[in-house]
Amino acid sequence: MTSITLFHALYVAAIAAEAMTAALAAGRRQMDWVGVALLGSVTALGGGSVRDLLLDRHPLTWIQHPSYLLVTSGAALATIVIARHMRQLRRVFLFLDAVGLVLFTLLGCQIAVRLEMPTVIVIASGMISGCVGGVLRDILCAEVPLLFRAELYATVSMVTGGLYVVGVALGLPSDPMMIGALIFGLALRLLALRFNWSMPKFVYTQTLH
Amino acid sequence: MTSITLFHALYVAAIAAEAMTAALAAGRRQMDWVGVALLGSVTALGGGSVRDLLLDRHPLTWIQHPSYLLVTSGAALATIVIARHMRQLRRVFLFLDAVGLVLFTLLGCQIAVRLEMPTVIVIASGMISGCVGGVLRDILCAEVPLLFRAELYATVSMVTGGLYVVGVALGLPSDPMMIGALIFGLALRLLALRFNWSMPKFVYTQTLH
Amino acid sequence: MTSITLFHALYVAAIAAEAMTAALAAGRRQMDWVGVALLGSVTALGGGSVRDLLLDRHPLTWIQHPSYLLVTSGAALATIVIARHMRQLRRVFLFLDAVGLVLFTLLGCQIAVRLEMPTVIVIASGMISGCVGGVLRDILCAEVPLLFRAELYATVSMVTGGLYVVGVALGLPSDPMMIGALIFGLALRLLALRFNWSMPKFVYTQTLH
Repeated sequence: MTSITLFHALYVAAIAAEAMTAALAAGRRQMDWVGVALLGSVTALGGGSVRDLLLDRHPLTWIQHPSYLLVTSGAALATIVIARHMRQLRRVFLFLDAVGLVLFTLLGCQIAVRLEMPTVIVIASGMISGCVGGVLRDILCAEVPLLFRAELYATVSMVTGGLYVVGVALGLPSDPMMIGALIFGLALRLLALRFNWSMPKFVYTQTLH
Repeated sequence: MTSITLFHALYVAAIAAEAMTAALAAGRRQMDWVGVALLGSVTALGGGSVRDLLLDRHPLTWIQHPSYLLVTSGAALATIVIARHMRQLRRVFLFLDAVGLVLFTLLGCQIAVRLEMPTVIVIASGMISGCVGGVLRDILCAEVPLLFRAELYATVSMVTGGLYVVGVALGLPSDPMMIGALIFGLALRLLALRFNWSMPKFVYTQTLH
Repeated sequence: MTSITLFHALYVAAIAAEAMTAALAAGRRQMDWVGVALLGSVTALGGGSVRDLLLDRHPLTWIQHPSYLLVTSGAALATIVIARHMRQLRRVFLFLDAVGLVLFTLLGCQIAVRLEMPTVIVIASGMISGCVGGVLRDILCAEVPLLFRAELYATVSMVTGGLYVVGVALGLPSDPMMIGALIFGLALRLLALRFNWSMPKFVYTQTLH
């Protein structure tokens, strides 16, 4: 299996996993089936879409590959059927969700590097690709995005992007570096989940006005 | 009256109706007059704008026709005056709101067909045009979008788009097909409202973490 | 100091001030440090980004000048340290926040005039530049945007833009007009804050359905 085939298979698995975790969030808000499919698709494909809009890259991924919309809608709807078994599959999901975060981040960085963007934008492009889907999901559920409140989600994305940038600066070959950064980011995310790592919070109780 | 004039008159009536129903939502949240005009305009013109951003079509409709902004702001502000009579006009509004949903959907499909997009994207373009305005309204009101929770809104949009796609595939002439799909979608929406049709809901109460 | 240098220095001070007030909003929701930096950046740079997406102007400001992202992230994070002294600095902040509103509005108008947009779009471009950052901040905090509910925020932006349009129509020289409109808008905003001016609200308690 070539690395392109590997990354592609991982990408499809990751958008399906993101759609399925979004479907559970939809179920917690008692959305109807159409809402489940829509929320799953927006969550899985939203980060890459926002990145491409901001970078002015067209056509968007899902417009060029409409079958991705079928994957995300299908995965979200399948979640309705298998939801009762999700707790047993919990570890598989958290793993695929972590793969999604790290893989989307690296693909976002790679795209910005190919556009010869400066370092800050390469890392921002990775973070937008990796994190914005979940932010859209939380906005559509009328919640303060989890990303801003807890877990090392955004931090993992930033560190993974930073590692990628260092690798590019050192002139490392692309494929081994992608795989190395993927494994590193995945390990960081899984360790953060396992040990409940979190960033310090900023607590402010006064009003300015 | 030619069909282009008919569709244009219906379009202007529909954006005015969408702006007016959004103005009522603004009034329920005690927004000020500026907020009423803004929420009305974003709701009425937001779906088409998001569609055009995603498809990279510029200039956006309201940038090319700024008078639409005056229509939507004016209709929203007029709602403040006539709000006390809105209950009597309830049926007119629900009818025009349904016209908006179906007409925006069909215009979105037509645009994607002209860009030679694949079938899935034609239907997606219709749904984005028809439904995203209401989603933006609900986000700006800090609510879980109604679209995801209830009514056949998104479903009517999807079915109407599907019908349009079948008509294009069969090579039917454009104008009669638009009118036929408009009447069909409108009937479906009004029947759904009348008989309280809804999609089944997905209820999930566990947490994955 | 030339007027370009002046406007640039004011712009950098204004995005820093917007990021800092957003950081306080983040602290009220107990976001973590990454969330603080992200919310500050989205608030400070979001209005200009949405304007440029809608007008199809690329590259976006912060993609062309990535250092702005460092300014906004740095200012937001610095807020965590100095938050306990913010009440004493209250007036400085409200002043810089007002500068941001008026300056962003005028820059948005200027951009639309250079693109030879019609008057309505020039004013809309100014309002989007001046106000959308705060709307994004409130959406990400899961609140109904302050803009829609209170204060003369949007009104100040609209009036300032209108003044700019009149100045352009009269053929006034650009720099003095920018400075005049800046002072006028600033005065209007500070008077509105001082005397608690507000627009009338639209209160509607019935449901249409």
